[in-house]
Amino acid sequence: MRKFLLSEGEIPKKWLNILPLLPEPLEPPLDPETMEPVKPEKLLAIFPEPLVEQEVSDKEWIDIPEEVLDIYSLWRPTPLHRAKNLEEFLGTPAKIFYKNESVSPPGSHKPNTAVAQAYYNKISGVKRLTTETGAGQWGSALSFATQFFDLQCRVYMVRVSYNQKPYRRILMETWKGEVIPSPSPYTNAGRKYYEENPEHPGSLGIAISEAIEEAASREDTKYSLGSVLNHVLLHQTVIGLEAKKQMEEAGYYPDVIIGAVGGGSNFAGLSFPFLADVLRGDKRKEDLKVLAVEPEACPTLTKGEYKYDFGDSVGLTPLIKMYTLGHDFVPSPIHAGGLRYHGDAPLVCKLYNLGYIDAVAYKQTEVFEAAVTFARTEGIVPAPESAHAIKAAIDEALKCKETGEEKVILFNLSGHGYFDLSAYDKYLHGELTD
Amino acid sequence: MRKFLLSEGEIPKKWLNILPLLPEPLEPPLDPETMEPVKPEKLLAIFPEPLVEQEVSDKEWIDIPEEVLDIYSLWRPTPLHRAKNLEEFLGTPAKIFYKNESVSPPGSHKPNTAVAQAYYNKISGVKRLTTETGAGQWGSALSFATQFFDLQCRVYMVRVSYNQKPYRRILMETWKGEVIPSPSPYTNAGRKYYEENPEHPGSLGIAISEAIEEAASREDTKYSLGSVLNHVLLHQTVIGLEAKKQMEEAGYYPDVIIGAVGGGSNFAGLSFPFLADVLRGDKRKEDLKVLAVEPEACPTLTKGEYKYDFGDSVGLTPLIKMYTLGHDFVPSPIHAGGLRYHGDAPLVCKLYNLGYIDAVAYKQTEVFEAAVTFARTEGIVPAPESAHAIKAAIDEALKCKETGEEKVILFNLSGHGYFDLSAYDKYLHGELTD
Repeated sequence: MRKFLLSEGEIPKKWLNILPLLPEPLEPPLDPETMEPVKPEKLLAIFPEPLVEQEVSDKEWIDIPEEVLDIYSLWRPTPLHRAKNLEEFLGTPAKIFYKNESVSPPGSHKPNTAVAQAYYNKISGVKRLTTETGAGQWGSALSFATQFFDLQCRVYMVRVSYNQKPYRRILMETWKGEVIPSPSPYTNAGRKYYEENPEHPGSLGIAISEAIEEAASREDTKYSLGSVLNHVLLHQTVIGLEAKKQMEEAGYYPDVIIGAVGGGSNFAGLSFPFLADVLRGDKRKEDLKVLAVEPEACPTLTKGEYKYDFGDSVGLTPLIKMYTLGHDFVPSPIHAGGLRYHGDAPLVCKLYNLGYIDAVAYKQTEVFEAAVTFARTEGIVPAPESAHAIKAAIDEALKCKETGEEKVILFNLSGHGYFDLSAYDKYLHGELTD
Repeated sequence: MRKFLLSEGEIPKKWLNILPLLPEPLEPPLDPETMEPVKPEKLLAIFPEPLVEQEVSDKEWIDIPEEVLDIYSLWRPTPLHRAKNLEEFLGTPAKIFYKNESVSPPGSHKPNTAVAQAYYNKISGVKRLTTETGAGQWGSALSFATQFFDLQCRVYMVRVSYNQKPYRRILMETWKGEVIPSPSPYTNAGRKYYEENPEHPGSLGIAISEAIEEAASREDTKYSLGSVLNHVLLHQTVIGLEAKKQMEEAGYYPDVIIGAVGGGSNFAGLSFPFLADVLRGDKRKEDLKVLAVEPEACPTLTKGEYKYDFGDSVGLTPLIKMYTLGHDFVPSPIHAGGLRYHGDAPLVCKLYNLGYIDAVAYKQTEVFEAAVTFARTEGIVPAPESAHAIKAAIDEALKCKETGEEKVILFNLSGHGYFDLSAYDKYLHGELTD
């Protein structure tokens, strides 16, 4: 068997909230002006109440609303694959499984939270959502999601990507998203750059500022974030909850769970439901290795410092306790754009700090080598972000080849690479550098 | 329920050969020099024996080899979806189902035959396959397939597409395909154009000539075709055989079956297993409507003549009895490149001629309107080719809205549109013409 499928009726009915399972409480976000914990009212200016509640909920299980399950069922449950061709190619005794989140219409795990966020905003009376996007992955997921709930979606897209990478912009527009090149003349944050230079290339930092400013200044508009926050990671646990059932069906429990970490949401989505077994004290699971994979160009966990820092690069957000390279850190322009974040989700950082999670960093060229190996054995062309997890899975499998161990490895294929083919072109023609 | 899934064990074990079920025999291809039926030896110069046998087989069921089933299982069985959101949007009492062939790694139904052809060439001792490709759909499917059987794959790609549409070229190369811009200096057919102008834009006709010439002139090399021929349609019946099981699971038998027709392979793949019920004389099925959809820019069935014509535009192939617009017909450059063929598969033409199949033609803009409606209700962005089937399904459903009939409509979503987004861009910004 190559694929383990669940029926629509087996989509999990609840998300798993790992917060109450933590061995010690998560440090709260701080208001940079007062250095006191941020008051919920401040968050309510840009997020709807149900999401602010989820952000600090102490309930272990949170019901997935029917309306969200209904949209999930357009593509969920996603398949779990046994990577038999890859195993054979490597000549490893290890068993390699991957959860295939690339089958969603936007092509990644991102809609798992986008749909939930769109729903909670809708029932809170919100009419419009704003967000920012770099290459367009998150923006396309949110455009996809909002159309099902008759919400308007405005995406501030970094202008250099808007001009150079039109495909995800078109995808957003096909799904009714309104895409604004940033910096724009529509916000104070954007206007000063725009007026200096209407062709200003922009940055993710400026785009975030524009999206938040608009949400904070309009009664009918809220802001939406695609990673890092607790409620985002919560929604992604649908990945790991499905994977647990599917691994059971396959007859295995993983020894190693692997995910790429940018903000941490696909990694947490797959791993938290398994980590919960460990946190609940299941002795049989305590050898579980959970491995976060990051690019050497942005080695947040492996080289960052665990401290309070701004969540954005401009200094608009609350201070968050996390591993960080400094909010002014500018990673080199690697093709795995989704992994170029100076920090990581506080929940992931806490569990890393407590020793429940390991981390490893790889160079871009070795990641693409793994990506091409995967495409040539399993057939699917992975997103550069997901290829980080593939590289680590291959390395774990090769260790087993040396030791003879028949470990069970599970990784998250968070998305496909159809919109990243120019990076493959560079790799295949020897033009990719580290 | 939105999706009807089958397990891997339910992939059909046999293809359905409709040839022996025809009410009258298919006219054989003729040698244009002698006007006599083509001798098998001639075909064996460019195709391996098992495929030449399948081309004229009188067996109703043909075993799918284990090795082919194994590769199919990377993505098959494909899901059958109930288009509930689309039904609701249209306000129709009709029930709309679609078979989702877009989930294959190359993104279309094409690998169903590419994998089979690669396998039969491999066991026949062939080392290399050649083919031609326009925008790259077939070339990427064949590159994908050949890598699993250690066959080399050389794809002659029309130079204007090679230069302007790099993404499918990169996809082919990622899957180890060797992509040659055509006209090339490597064949007699290409050299004369190439030497006149090394940047000659090329045409599908020249690319076909190059691929066939190379296959005919090398002992270790055969040629591969992605549509039109009987054996190609045979391999595609895996689509309809799965869909039949899934429709049973859903509790329905279709009243209307719809597919876009370029060469005819995705249309035949879905419809032949249902048409077989009619041909076998099942009285309960005789009202089945099977609808072929084509672009008005290339109205082969609706406006063509049923006669012998060349299969290619240059006049290299045998003469084939089919509906044709004339082998020198040049359709306008619509975005559904896969439907720009002057003829159609002889099997489809025969059944159309005998009245078992209906046909309808649509304009490009109305097709894209349907495509965007689909993307905004069902979420998936369809290939422009597949959008022709969607347009017809919507029209059938709207007829039901008028009459109140609760018809069951099944269409083939033959591929996704991620590589066709520039056409969506034109449509969304009012720049698409008919």
